[in-house]
Amino acid sequence: MDLPADVFDILRALDLASVVVFAITGALVASRKQMDIVGFLWLGVVTGVGGGTVRDLLLGAPVFWVVDATPLALCMGAAAIEHFSAHLVASRYRILLYLDAFGMALVTTVGTAKALDMGAGPLVAVCMGVITAAVGGILRDLLGQEPSILLRRDIYVTAAASGSIALLVADGVGVPRLAATGIAIGFGFGLRAMAIRFDLFLPVFKPRPGRMPGHRGEVK
Amino acid sequence: MDLPADVFDILRALDLASVVVFAITGALVASRKQMDIVGFLWLGVVTGVGGGTVRDLLLGAPVFWVVDATPLALCMGAAAIEHFSAHLVASRYRILLYLDAFGMALVTTVGTAKALDMGAGPLVAVCMGVITAAVGGILRDLLGQEPSILLRRDIYVTAAASGSIALLVADGVGVPRLAATGIAIGFGFGLRAMAIRFDLFLPVFKPRPGRMPGHRGEVK
Amino acid sequence: MDLPADVFDILRALDLASVVVFAITGALVASRKQMDIVGFLWLGVVTGVGGGTVRDLLLGAPVFWVVDATPLALCMGAAAIEHFSAHLVASRYRILLYLDAFGMALVTTVGTAKALDMGAGPLVAVCMGVITAAVGGILRDLLGQEPSILLRRDIYVTAAASGSIALLVADGVGVPRLAATGIAIGFGFGLRAMAIRFDLFLPVFKPRPGRMPGHRGEVK
Repeated sequence: MDLPADVFDILRALDLASVVVFAITGALVASRKQMDIVGFLWLGVVTGVGGGTVRDLLLGAPVFWVVDATPLALCMGAAAIEHFSAHLVASRYRILLYLDAFGMALVTTVGTAKALDMGAGPLVAVCMGVITAAVGGILRDLLGQEPSILLRRDIYVTAAASGSIALLVADGVGVPRLAATGIAIGFGFGLRAMAIRFDLFLPVFKPRPGRMPGHRGEVK
Repeated sequence: MDLPADVFDILRALDLASVVVFAITGALVASRKQMDIVGFLWLGVVTGVGGGTVRDLLLGAPVFWVVDATPLALCMGAAAIEHFSAHLVASRYRILLYLDAFGMALVTTVGTAKALDMGAGPLVAVCMGVITAAVGGILRDLLGQEPSILLRRDIYVTAAASGSIALLVADGVGVPRLAATGIAIGFGFGLRAMAIRFDLFLPVFKPRPGRMPGHRGEVK
Repeated sequence: MDLPADVFDILRALDLASVVVFAITGALVASRKQMDIVGFLWLGVVTGVGGGTVRDLLLGAPVFWVVDATPLALCMGAAAIEHFSAHLVASRYRILLYLDAFGMALVTTVGTAKALDMGAGPLVAVCMGVITAAVGGILRDLLGQEPSILLRRDIYVTAAASGSIALLVADGVGVPRLAATGIAIGFGFGLRAMAIRFDLFLPVFKPRPGRMPGHRGEVK
């Protein structure tokens, strides 16, 4: 990103911190499922770096943690520590929710910027931001056999998308990248934090009774 | 593909239409699970472009919707519309089954041809055709936590494989690519349509009672 | 790998054999779920080549079975045969457990060596070894909707990781690659075989009662 060197360093440090927060939420699922330490490591790593990994594969970029294993090591460290102290994390999980919201907003912005810098169009860039933020959690729920993030209705992906779009708009109207980054993180975090604080949900599709086909004989 | 320009345009339009049909089947799962609009978008996009995405990653080709976001936009549009009108789709789902069959036959053929054009051998090319057709549905069922397409026994992948093999054979005996494409789509669609119409199934493996080990202590 | 040509040929043959053993464990899940032959082929192929595929994608290497379809053909052949004779496999599944243990140790070593040869650092190389060994089984359980390998507590990934680390250490202290390969396979297989023989498990995380938050309102 086209940012001053020290700001870039700060962003990079925050990005690593976000990955660690994700890893902690992954290890928390491992603790709830009473996994062994290997399960903690898997879920920690997959949740921590999964979103960025899928983003890099789709963009055709080298996978970030293969190039530099720091995020991998941090995820493993966090998951290993949590194996012995998950109750400490679990009892503070409301703080974790807000940290996760901040991490989400930050990696969305960084993921969107990476896609833009690699020449992706606006729609693809927003998708890459959302993928960076959400795919780790989706994989965590799949592997931990929890109800998927997609079936819960709290505003998570919407907040990520709004942050990503905020970056695009700010970038498009000529706001310097540094300020645009701040605005985008603010949008994503603000919306997510409000959703947590006030229990906001998106409206859901309500089928009309008797009109939906049953499960057997379904499409494909 | 080595086709006349206007035929290529027709194929491309049909390919986009197929992706949209897949997206609609994805959004239908979202409606059955009463997801919010974000869930509709995820399942629509994953089902619509998932198969082609995995194919491109495996072949080492640039992911098609990252290069040109049209299919992505169409999937999102279809899923968003369906969020407000899923009952209209659901009540016409037998038509949807046949549209899906046609889409399956078409993307199988296009996927197989893409693999051949990139230098893949025949077995890999058939697999790429099948992956293009089926992986979107597999991911849809995983993310929607539905019984997997793999556990249902209707003839879907078999139809895709037969279309793919038809393309290989026609191509191999010197049929022009345009005719070979038509033959392959006909094979795939014909077999799938017959399976829908006449409720055809493949025979399943029947374990001899008492001979299968139980679940605990299973392999790996 | 920097090995004599005939040793390389032996390793390659063993590597193919390992993939086939994995495919057989995949087809065994298909038989337990009473899938049709297409389900056998999917689970056989995904379990057989899934780990190596994800490794190659992450490393940015061409996917091994796209380059040379031999492993793909062998997986499909093994799965097809098993469709008609799964009870023969199931009744010998303790032998299969040990064959699987040997296959795991071997592909871990080969996967780690491949990552090292492509310039990966030690932590990434160990992860690639483990991914090669375990991701096929994880995908098999996801697609077969079985309880995930991650929720079972037998020593599998730990054995893979120990073999991988053994290769790194032996390589690091200057042991020739051939001997290092043997040592690594011995470590991985030995630990896994002991775990099978003596029913060894890793300790699991035990939550303190009443301290873990419930499922609703969970992180992300």
